[in-house]
Amino acid sequence: MSRQLHLNAFVMPNGHHEAAWRHPSTDPRRARTLRHYVDIARTAERGMLDSLFLADGVALWSNVKHNSHSHFEPLTLLSALAATTDHIGLIATASTTYNEPYHLARKFASLDHLSGGRAGWNIVTSAGVDEARNFNLGTRPGHELRYARATEFVDVVKKLWDSWDDDAAVLDRASGIYADTDRIRPIEHEGEHFRVRGPLNIERPVQGHPLLVQAGSSETGKEYAARHAEAVFTAQQTFAEGKAFYDDVKGRLAKYGRSPDEIKILPGISPIIGRTTAEARAREAELNALITPEYGLHQLSKLLDHDITGCPLDGPLPDVGSFTEGAQSRLALVVGLARRENLTIRQLLERLAGGRGHRVFAGTPVRIADELEQWFTGGAADGFNVMPPTLPGGLDEFVDLVVPELRRRGLFRAEYTGTTLREHYGLARPVNRNRVKEHAA
Amino acid sequence: MSRQLHLNAFVMPNGHHEAAWRHPSTDPRRARTLRHYVDIARTAERGMLDSLFLADGVALWSNVKHNSHSHFEPLTLLSALAATTDHIGLIATASTTYNEPYHLARKFASLDHLSGGRAGWNIVTSAGVDEARNFNLGTRPGHELRYARATEFVDVVKKLWDSWDDDAAVLDRASGIYADTDRIRPIEHEGEHFRVRGPLNIERPVQGHPLLVQAGSSETGKEYAARHAEAVFTAQQTFAEGKAFYDDVKGRLAKYGRSPDEIKILPGISPIIGRTTAEARAREAELNALITPEYGLHQLSKLLDHDITGCPLDGPLPDVGSFTEGAQSRLALVVGLARRENLTIRQLLERLAGGRGHRVFAGTPVRIADELEQWFTGGAADGFNVMPPTLPGGLDEFVDLVVPELRRRGLFRAEYTGTTLREHYGLARPVNRNRVKEHAA
Repeated sequence: MSRQLHLNAFVMPNGHHEAAWRHPSTDPRRARTLRHYVDIARTAERGMLDSLFLADGVALWSNVKHNSHSHFEPLTLLSALAATTDHIGLIATASTTYNEPYHLARKFASLDHLSGGRAGWNIVTSAGVDEARNFNLGTRPGHELRYARATEFVDVVKKLWDSWDDDAAVLDRASGIYADTDRIRPIEHEGEHFRVRGPLNIERPVQGHPLLVQAGSSETGKEYAARHAEAVFTAQQTFAEGKAFYDDVKGRLAKYGRSPDEIKILPGISPIIGRTTAEARAREAELNALITPEYGLHQLSKLLDHDITGCPLDGPLPDVGSFTEGAQSRLALVVGLARRENLTIRQLLERLAGGRGHRVFAGTPVRIADELEQWFTGGAADGFNVMPPTLPGGLDEFVDLVVPELRRRGLFRAEYTGTTLREHYGLARPVNRNRVKEHAA
Repeated sequence: MSRQLHLNAFVMPNGHHEAAWRHPSTDPRRARTLRHYVDIARTAERGMLDSLFLADGVALWSNVKHNSHSHFEPLTLLSALAATTDHIGLIATASTTYNEPYHLARKFASLDHLSGGRAGWNIVTSAGVDEARNFNLGTRPGHELRYARATEFVDVVKKLWDSWDDDAAVLDRASGIYADTDRIRPIEHEGEHFRVRGPLNIERPVQGHPLLVQAGSSETGKEYAARHAEAVFTAQQTFAEGKAFYDDVKGRLAKYGRSPDEIKILPGISPIIGRTTAEARAREAELNALITPEYGLHQLSKLLDHDITGCPLDGPLPDVGSFTEGAQSRLALVVGLARRENLTIRQLLERLAGGRGHRVFAGTPVRIADELEQWFTGGAADGFNVMPPTLPGGLDEFVDLVVPELRRRGLFRAEYTGTTLREHYGLARPVNRNRVKEHAA
């Protein structure tokens, strides 16, 4: 079989367009129920998608007056979805800055066992000052410190996942031996940020390690991804940018002893689907007409770290000075977009409304498939992070109209061939480093 | 309707008897699957039980060689059960010593929303040194420090739950107002252990506050329960001890402005059920015959904080000196039991094997119902923490044989009359203190 692309459904309550919750096709009350997410997960599974994904932050969305980006907490919601789906991977975002590795190692192992090997962890370092203030700090820790902690954090988590051999639970009723304790070892981690003795209080995950996902696209973020990540979600506006990012990240893997196949790069795309291009554009315009400019200005000011709420909507983006640390790469993307296309603030807000910097593409299913195929075969993507503009409708349309077109082209699976998230992504099950070490000794 | 008792199913993988996993009626491989827990939860729901409960610790069970006390992490497992049940309350244990209040407030709020108002939190302070060593510490924090932190922790969590008014999410599509931000307020908590700005990033829980449960029976634990808890799980061996504990805790409520009805006291009972008393005793003996003495000696040494693994099994319990802080009340219970009944170590191990200090009662359904009725009507219990010796069989028998007998006596519900865990327990939905404060100002 030829190389197959991978599809992840990035789920938000009412969809990715900032005005989705105001659109007649959505139901913002229902979007606050488990049933809504169960339906979405089953739709994704009907389409044979690889996974679904929940973003997260640990502070109230500052613009909650005009929209909500979340309702449920990801690990609890995905555990509920583990019980109501059979195949789809379940990727939760969790922060290395405001958690302890023992808790996260355990929760992701638990989700992996609950789901029969379908858990993934999107690793974030929580750049927001609002988040810091919920966790005993007055200011956010710096970029380098957050990534240094994140590196040690993931190291500890992997050691904990490997603290049980796969066959440590022997369950021998005759002899009364539940677990072979020679195959369960403390990790005795003593590092700069963490002291963790272990072992973990749950068996090694079904997948060995739940899938590790990362989405930072800063210089540090790319290096972190090359070292640790197995899938990367990224915002890329043009094919050229996408290809450059793809080559850049893949090129960094060798120095960590990894092959380019060991990481899957999935640019985001918000597909606005119409039977004709004109219909798709009309649907986009219909959504954009529901934008609250106050919302967009607030969001953009926050992203730019520069108050532009008083600037005229039909004027250009003012000079916003140098970039602060934090969401560096997204900021460069937005300013680059405005400058390259000479957009007014209003036009920029419309461009951002669909995907917060991710690519929005309005077109027919065939044209959308063309775009995905070009990025995939042209070496800018291993698959896509699909961000439906509205939910549940936008995912239904993608699954019913675009997925079959990709399948006709031989680019996407017609049925699940594996059972775990790793198998969906074509990634190997990690060997137990702890055990290997022991056997070498 | 007369006063009704409350029943909680305390769930462990294979049941509460330490040898349950070796008994022919259990299936230790299946006990590591979600399906096993789904079946148990549905059985509990078929019996119209109030809730099910998972204990927890954040270190590997030290005696894993001979048994396992857990497999899944409670919040992930109960979220999965929220999606597969309709009525039963879901109570997860979580530690105030090794968590941050923002995370726990959010996760329990999320479970409460996922389940339509069925979440409960069993508050523990994690006495174990093995737990401390997984969270950057060399020794466990002292008893008083843990409880001081726990008090502030719960205060912060309640403030976070109250940071949204119940009606803050207005979802007004016409005006584009998602939430009324005048009804969402930061909590600005600055205390000795925590600085948390808030607000929480999830709406106020369905129940206002998930149910607060507590199980410490030390002096500090009882005072903590009187101040914060709405349900108490407790180990009591005799009616007299149970009644003394009941009166003691209920008597402490007035000084916190609470009425005795605002807390439900549920002693543990492990019912070993037979068609005749002789059959029940034979089943108990059959389980006891599967005890691994090495396991029991290890457990008892750990509880006593005194190595007795070298003592003769058929001799008396040696003098174990003064009690250390930690699981103080359980220790006094065990030593008291051995002295009062003049038990050999082997006899003591058998008495502890069924419920780790909780009461084990072998008898017919009628005799078990007699016991429960006596404790309930005699003022020693508002209900019971039911600890089936084996699972799933022990719960099936309780639901099919004992519950109907309780129902015949008018002591237990014939159907659910409410939808939330609070309604099952007959407890009021907390007012929003934050809102009340505002309105009073």
